[in-house]
Amino acid sequence: MDGVNPTDKSSTIPLQHQMEIRVRYKETDAQGHVHHSNYLNYFEVARTEMLRTSGKSYRDLEAEGVMLVVVKATCHYKRGAKYDDLLTLDTRLVKAKGTRITHRYEIRNEQGIVCIGETVVAAVDRDGRVKRLPKWLRVEVSET
Amino acid sequence: MDGVNPTDKSSTIPLQHQMEIRVRYKETDAQGHVHHSNYLNYFEVARTEMLRTSGKSYRDLEAEGVMLVVVKATCHYKRGAKYDDLLTLDTRLVKAKGTRITHRYEIRNEQGIVCIGETVVAAVDRDGRVKRLPKWLRVEVSET
Amino acid sequence: MDGVNPTDKSSTIPLQHQMEIRVRYKETDAQGHVHHSNYLNYFEVARTEMLRTSGKSYRDLEAEGVMLVVVKATCHYKRGAKYDDLLTLDTRLVKAKGTRITHRYEIRNEQGIVCIGETVVAAVDRDGRVKRLPKWLRVEVSET
Amino acid sequence: MDGVNPTDKSSTIPLQHQMEIRVRYKETDAQGHVHHSNYLNYFEVARTEMLRTSGKSYRDLEAEGVMLVVVKATCHYKRGAKYDDLLTLDTRLVKAKGTRITHRYEIRNEQGIVCIGETVVAAVDRDGRVKRLPKWLRVEVSET
Repeated sequence: MDGVNPTDKSSTIPLQHQMEIRVRYKETDAQGHVHHSNYLNYFEVARTEMLRTSGKSYRDLEAEGVMLVVVKATCHYKRGAKYDDLLTLDTRLVKAKGTRITHRYEIRNEQGIVCIGETVVAAVDRDGRVKRLPKWLRVEVSET
Repeated sequence: MDGVNPTDKSSTIPLQHQMEIRVRYKETDAQGHVHHSNYLNYFEVARTEMLRTSGKSYRDLEAEGVMLVVVKATCHYKRGAKYDDLLTLDTRLVKAKGTRITHRYEIRNEQGIVCIGETVVAAVDRDGRVKRLPKWLRVEVSET
Repeated sequence: MDGVNPTDKSSTIPLQHQMEIRVRYKETDAQGHVHHSNYLNYFEVARTEMLRTSGKSYRDLEAEGVMLVVVKATCHYKRGAKYDDLLTLDTRLVKAKGTRITHRYEIRNEQGIVCIGETVVAAVDRDGRVKRLPKWLRVEVSET
Repeated sequence: MDGVNPTDKSSTIPLQHQMEIRVRYKETDAQGHVHHSNYLNYFEVARTEMLRTSGKSYRDLEAEGVMLVVVKATCHYKRGAKYDDLLTLDTRLVKAKGTRITHRYEIRNEQGIVCIGETVVAAVDRDGRVKRLPKWLRVEVSET
């Protein structure tokens, strides 16, 4: 987080974030569990709320002409979450340099780990051209 | 496209349309049936494919600055469709005058009628202001 | 709410409910607004949370063999909600007698009313046969 | 279906499959492209249709007590697909032994490659216990 002005509220990028999501009926499928594609949405909601705690929302970011597009997503499914489960989402910022941000996620329900995932998003301008992350979004994290 | 040329293929608005849709796993829910909200998507797919048979796609329409937004939707659910059901969608153009188009839909699976619905879409410009339907989209239909 | 035992926590059916829902990216479409089908999901989330305040969740209800299936849904769309809007959902129980429950909904964002809707759900058993609502779910409401 | 009869149509597991999917409005998001989570659904539709060409549908398989659950999914996004794009999905069976099946996918639109993905599904019984794949589903493929 180079050159950060400590009085600039928008520059405090959190490295960890936790939130809860209640599983909706629409998100389940006929096997009785959350359809596997929905976890990518949960990851996105977690990224969004994590960014919001920095003082700037993703909507603000888009208004400034910085779009973040997903360039890679991976998910390992361990256990099926069910309708009305209150899921705990733990999100960790792994890397944010150059044009890309990497997050890792762990989702748990009462029985244990539901899934573990990772996404890479890239910054692009309104015309879809890759651009460097704004300085306040860049973070040096010692990777694990 | 005012002053329709009767030989212009794009001006032939079909009044009826039939198509099939295969139910996807993602569209089912934990009760084992298609989640009720998905029928609105099926209706939209049917409207789109019905318009395409007129020689102009909805994408073309948007490119010309005519957006269609849904202003009302109703659905009566009769029977739960299941994963992998091959649904038959019958769509009927009920009215298309002024700024609005009304469609009615009937969806069936092998067991019988799944649902019956109606939507009203309105034409708006790129700024969301209501505008008259292009002439070739207007149809006089004797209402039932 | 006939024959209610005032000490029975589960019998206090609320007639009104308010909650907030944050619009997710996945729920928007290329026109830049929430896709119209998603409001049916929001209505369902509101019904679920309204029921939860009665002391019994819909999941509990299903565990007791009472499934609620949507038999009719209507929505009037007034204004497009956008990504990250914090929507206010007001839900009102209109009728709950015999086998059916009717709810009315109003969703607002900062600009005003987004949509107004109504759903009718019917109670069925695990085999899909219509059954009377459990006594504690029935409510006499003077209809508006 | 052990002891496969080579004349039994249902035992011919295809190693490659190609199909087309038309992008629905609901699948796009406010950035104007298909929301990244939807590609996992497209992959699932492709697996389903690929299996159907073997003479047995996934629905048949579930009826026999073999459920396939996704245990891992990865997707690399190259290009945003748009509303009404006619996507070409190429699916390849990479491995099907023991309890798991691995597929690789490539999705293209008119402009080129949209995304490349891989999924691993595992066979489970109705109680969610991992079980060996039925013999006719197992395939020896020289991995690439």
